[in-house]
Amino acid sequence: MNALVETTNPHVVNGINVDALTALLTRVKQDASQGQTTWRVTTTWQGQTRSRADISGFAIGGEEVPRRFSFDIDEPYELGGSNAFANPQEYLLAALNACMTVGYVAQCAIRGITLTQLKIETEGDIDLRGFLGIDPTVPPGYESLRYTVRLSGDGTEEQFAEIHAAVMATSPNVYNIANAVALKPTLVIE
Amino acid sequence: MNALVETTNPHVVNGINVDALTALLTRVKQDASQGQTTWRVTTTWQGQTRSRADISGFAIGGEEVPRRFSFDIDEPYELGGSNAFANPQEYLLAALNACMTVGYVAQCAIRGITLTQLKIETEGDIDLRGFLGIDPTVPPGYESLRYTVRLSGDGTEEQFAEIHAAVMATSPNVYNIANAVALKPTLVIE
Repeated sequence: MNALVETTNPHVVNGINVDALTALLTRVKQDASQGQTTWRVTTTWQGQTRSRADISGFAIGGEEVPRRFSFDIDEPYELGGSNAFANPQEYLLAALNACMTVGYVAQCAIRGITLTQLKIETEGDIDLRGFLGIDPTVPPGYESLRYTVRLSGDGTEEQFAEIHAAVMATSPNVYNIANAVALKPTLVIE
Repeated sequence: MNALVETTNPHVVNGINVDALTALLTRVKQDASQGQTTWRVTTTWQGQTRSRADISGFAIGGEEVPRRFSFDIDEPYELGGSNAFANPQEYLLAALNACMTVGYVAQCAIRGITLTQLKIETEGDIDLRGFLGIDPTVPPGYESLRYTVRLSGDGTEEQFAEIHAAVMATSPNVYNIANAVALKPTLVIE
């Protein structure tokens, strides 16, 4: 990431304020506590297979940042839903793609590479015998995900290959999906 | 899942058509190919850290089901974004919560248990030294996720504990996050 301080355009590349990104990097390098973040989502059942996700803020460097977002998730008719919104498996793929998008855009920005387009198509298969409890040896989720990243910009093939490797190594949602994250549930019957 | 065919209310519980769910279960038991699904999301960069997820359909039992959804994802100001939408880490948590919600609702429905409320609060920490490439030994994503499921309904504590265990064992997105999913990328420079 030394390219950060060597960039020939220290201002805005791909819409990213490289000065601000550099300042964040420097702060976190000097004091790791400045880079500690906490993310939270509260989901409330809306009937049938519908749920609403509410976000009220996140924390960074020990400071709470209030911000409000809300969105809805459903299941298709074929899986018992009302097909009003995309489903949880699609939201997961979108979360992966969005995180990788930020990765490519930021990695290009810090190297002074301008992107003209970036598109990621992701797909995966799920065998419903897992979800339906028919066969406990069948994984209920994705065993693998195939994705194609299509990009254009003024980087060389070598630079884009390096950026691709960096995104795979540093993207939070690549990590979250490609690795086992420990789930720590509490069940409260009210 | 034998409870499915023994349910005392074979019609609609928690908004779920239990007859339809039972029919799906029977179909997939008889012919596993009927339970093969494929999920796809195409994400297009919208400038800065914003991206749009487009869904055009999914496949089940070899049949394509067209349906169109679109939603947007961003990053907060503190991470170089325009804070117009929730961020990829929040979308991932929402996808997990929504999938578990469907699990609780369906597991209750097939047992004839009526839920009166269901809420899931999930949170996790991310150390930005991973994303920023400062320390390759720091995981860029969540090492663990804490979540609290709050529910009420006419089930017993024992039933809800059994349902909770079933959701953890069969939820696709619980699997996707709690296990390592293989990522198979293709990079296309256009």
